[in-house]
Amino acid sequence: MSNCIVAQSGGPTAAINASLCGVIEAALMHPEIDTIYGALNGIAGVLEDHTLNLTELFAHKPESLQQLRYTPAMYLGSCRFKLPDYSKAAEPYEKIFSFFKEKSIGYFLYIGGNDSMDTVSKLSKYATEHHIDVKIIGIPKTIDNDLVETDHTPGFGSAAKYVATTMLEIAHDTYIYDLESVTIVEIMGRNAGWLTAASALARTTYSSAPDLIYLPETAFDVKQFIERIKTLQKSRKNIIVAVSEGIKDKEGNYVAASVSGTNDAFGHAKLSGVGKTLEYMLADQLGCKVRSVELSVLQRAAGHIGSNTDIQEAVAVGKAAVESAVRGLTGKMMAIRRLNVASYEVDIQPVDVGLVANHEKEVPKHYISASGDDVTSDFINYARPLIEGETPLTYKNGLPNYMDIQHLKNR
Amino acid sequence: MSNCIVAQSGGPTAAINASLCGVIEAALMHPEIDTIYGALNGIAGVLEDHTLNLTELFAHKPESLQQLRYTPAMYLGSCRFKLPDYSKAAEPYEKIFSFFKEKSIGYFLYIGGNDSMDTVSKLSKYATEHHIDVKIIGIPKTIDNDLVETDHTPGFGSAAKYVATTMLEIAHDTYIYDLESVTIVEIMGRNAGWLTAASALARTTYSSAPDLIYLPETAFDVKQFIERIKTLQKSRKNIIVAVSEGIKDKEGNYVAASVSGTNDAFGHAKLSGVGKTLEYMLADQLGCKVRSVELSVLQRAAGHIGSNTDIQEAVAVGKAAVESAVRGLTGKMMAIRRLNVASYEVDIQPVDVGLVANHEKEVPKHYISASGDDVTSDFINYARPLIEGETPLTYKNGLPNYMDIQHLKNR
Repeated sequence: MSNCIVAQSGGPTAAINASLCGVIEAALMHPEIDTIYGALNGIAGVLEDHTLNLTELFAHKPESLQQLRYTPAMYLGSCRFKLPDYSKAAEPYEKIFSFFKEKSIGYFLYIGGNDSMDTVSKLSKYATEHHIDVKIIGIPKTIDNDLVETDHTPGFGSAAKYVATTMLEIAHDTYIYDLESVTIVEIMGRNAGWLTAASALARTTYSSAPDLIYLPETAFDVKQFIERIKTLQKSRKNIIVAVSEGIKDKEGNYVAASVSGTNDAFGHAKLSGVGKTLEYMLADQLGCKVRSVELSVLQRAAGHIGSNTDIQEAVAVGKAAVESAVRGLTGKMMAIRRLNVASYEVDIQPVDVGLVANHEKEVPKHYISASGDDVTSDFINYARPLIEGETPLTYKNGLPNYMDIQHLKNR
Repeated sequence: MSNCIVAQSGGPTAAINASLCGVIEAALMHPEIDTIYGALNGIAGVLEDHTLNLTELFAHKPESLQQLRYTPAMYLGSCRFKLPDYSKAAEPYEKIFSFFKEKSIGYFLYIGGNDSMDTVSKLSKYATEHHIDVKIIGIPKTIDNDLVETDHTPGFGSAAKYVATTMLEIAHDTYIYDLESVTIVEIMGRNAGWLTAASALARTTYSSAPDLIYLPETAFDVKQFIERIKTLQKSRKNIIVAVSEGIKDKEGNYVAASVSGTNDAFGHAKLSGVGKTLEYMLADQLGCKVRSVELSVLQRAAGHIGSNTDIQEAVAVGKAAVESAVRGLTGKMMAIRRLNVASYEVDIQPVDVGLVANHEKEVPKHYISASGDDVTSDFINYARPLIEGETPLTYKNGLPNYMDIQHLKNR
C-alpha cells in the first residue's frame, strides 16, 4: 500500500484537467493506492512541499470530478521548471525523493508537454539507478501536438476545435462586406504548425477560409506571399490567411521580428507579432482593407468549446497511466495509437519517455501541400476526428460552471 | 396585399440573423404580406437591385429558419452606407422608392445600429412627406449596446457572454503560474463601455478578474492606473485589467496609439492597440510579466457562445417589427422595455426612430464605481440576465452548423 502524487506542468489546455480527472478516478479505484496527492505548480510543489489531498477533495464526489473534467487550464497550477542533470546537480533529486519517501509515494504521474517528459525521463532514470521504488509515468498534453511517439496529444483536439470554429466565425464576419479585404489570423505554434494547420478544418461548402495556410515547417517567402494574395484577389474578394506565430524566412529568421518601426503614444518601439507585421506590410502593398487577428491565449484555455473526443481521450490517458504505474511500469509516457484511420479508433500504449523528451514532432511533408501554403487532404483526414463531439459543459449565471481554483491564489 | 423587404447593416453580432428569422417567421404568417425580399448588403442592395427571395428560401423550411437563428453575422450581408440629407441629394431616395414601387414593397424593415436608425429615420420622413405608403421600421442590433430608448440591444447579450466567458478563461489561464503578472484585455467600444463593463460578469467566488475596469466614459489617468496596479500587487499576484478600446485621457485624446489615422465611411476614427500600448508602458514601469490580449472581431461573431436570452429576444424584436408595420406604424424602432428588474421580464414597444438616430447611450454614472475603475452592483444586476441561457446550436463535422452564405461571395 502506497500513496500516489500527480502534478501538471507547461502551458494550459482545455483537456489537462480531464487527464487529472482520469488519474484520480483510476487511483480511487485501486486498492494498491492509498492517498492521492496533488503537487501544486508542477514539480515545484514537490520541491516546496505544496500539496493538496485529492482523495479528500474528490472521493465520493462524482459531480466534482465531472466539473473538473471540463475545466480548462491546470487545477493544480503549473510551472516552467527544468530539472538539471543529476550528474551535475543531485540536490533537487535528493529533495524530491526524500519528499516521496516521507509521504510514502509509490507512484508519480506528471501531466505535461516536452519539458515535463524530460522531467519524467530524468526522475525515472534516477530512481532506477538508485534502486528507489517509485513508478514514474508521463501523461502527454499540449495544444501544440508536437510530441513524438503518440498519434496526437490530449489538448490539441480542443484547441483545434476552437481554432476551426473561430476561423469559421471570422469568415462569417468577413464575407458580409462587399469590399476587397485580407484578414491575417495568427495562431500559436513556434516550431510546429499543427494548430495553424487545424484551421483548415474550418472549411465548409460555402467558406474557403483559410485561403492560405503558412506553417513554420515551410520557409516563408514574402514576395511569393504577396503574389499569391494578388492572384487570389482576381477570383475572390475576401482572403483569409492562417499563419503560425513562428513562421521563418529561408535564412531561419522569424518573420515576426523582421519588421517593426513606429512608436506608440508613450514613445515605445512597437514589437509586432507576425499577424501585425504582415498586416502592415500588406496595407502598404495592396489597396484594400487589411486586418489581423491574434488568437492569443484564448486558443489554449477555451473550455467552452472543447472537443469531446479530446476530453474523453484525456481522461482515458490519465486512467491508463495509473494502470501502467500499478502494473509496475516506470519511465513511460502514455501514447495514443491510431488503430484505424477510415473509422477513427485508438488505443493507449506506454512508450519509453526517453524517446519523447527533448524531441519535437513537426508537421510531416505529406500533410503540407506542394505549394507550401496549404495542407493536404491527408492532414484533414488525420485531424477531423480529433475535433468531433461537444462536451456536456454546464453553465451557472450565464458562465461555464468551472471548478473553483481559489487554492492557486492563496499561495 | 404587398411585399416586404428586409436588410441588415453595420457590424456583425451573433443575434442579427435571429432578428431576420423573426421578421421572416412573422411575415410568412401575415396574410397582408405576399413576398418577403432580402436586400443584400443593406440599403446598398436596394439601390443596386440586389435581392434574395426569402419566401422561396424559407417558407415551409423550419429547419432552415432554426439554422439561420443561430448563425452569426449577416445572412444578407452588410454595408456602411450613409444616406445623404434628402434636401441636399434626393437621388438615392428617388431610386429607393422607385425600386420599392416596382417591387410593390409596402414594408421595409432595417436591422442595424445607430447609423441604420438614421437611415430608417430619413427614409420614413421622406415617405411621409411625399405621401408614399411604405411602412419603415428599425430593428436594433449592436454589440455596443449604445442605442437610446431601449433597455438594451439585441446582440449585446451574446457579445457580453463571450466577453465574460473568455475573461473567466483568461483568469484560469493566468492563475496557474506562481508569479506576478498583469494581463490587459482589450474589449470593443469606442465611446460606450457597455461591453467592457460586461467583463465584470466573469467574476466568480474564486476569481476577481477583471480586477480593474476602464471605460471610455471615465477619463483615463495613466499615473493613477499604475498606482492602482502597484497597490493591488500588495495583495494579489495576478492582476487582470479590462479596458475599452476607446478610453481617453482627460484632454479627450485616445490612449491607443492611432495606427492608421484613417477614418471609416462614417468618420469614426479607426482604433487599435490600447492593450498593446498599456502593455509596453507597464512592462517599463513594473518588474513583472505583462501581456495583453485583444478580443478583436471574435467578440462580435462568436455564435458558438450566444446568449439564449439575447437570441430569443432578437427573434421577438424582429417579429414585433413586422406586427408594427402591418398595424400601420412607420418611422419607429422596436425597443426592449424592462418591466421587472428583480425577476427579469421585458416587453417590446415601438419608439420614434428619430429619438434614437445619431444618439449614443453611454454607461450611466450609477453603473460606474466612484473610483472610476470598476462597475457597480446595479450594473451587474442590469447585465446578468442578458447573458443567461445557452443556445441549442447544432454541430457538423465538429464545427457549428451555420447557414450557408455562398450568395454573399458570388457578388
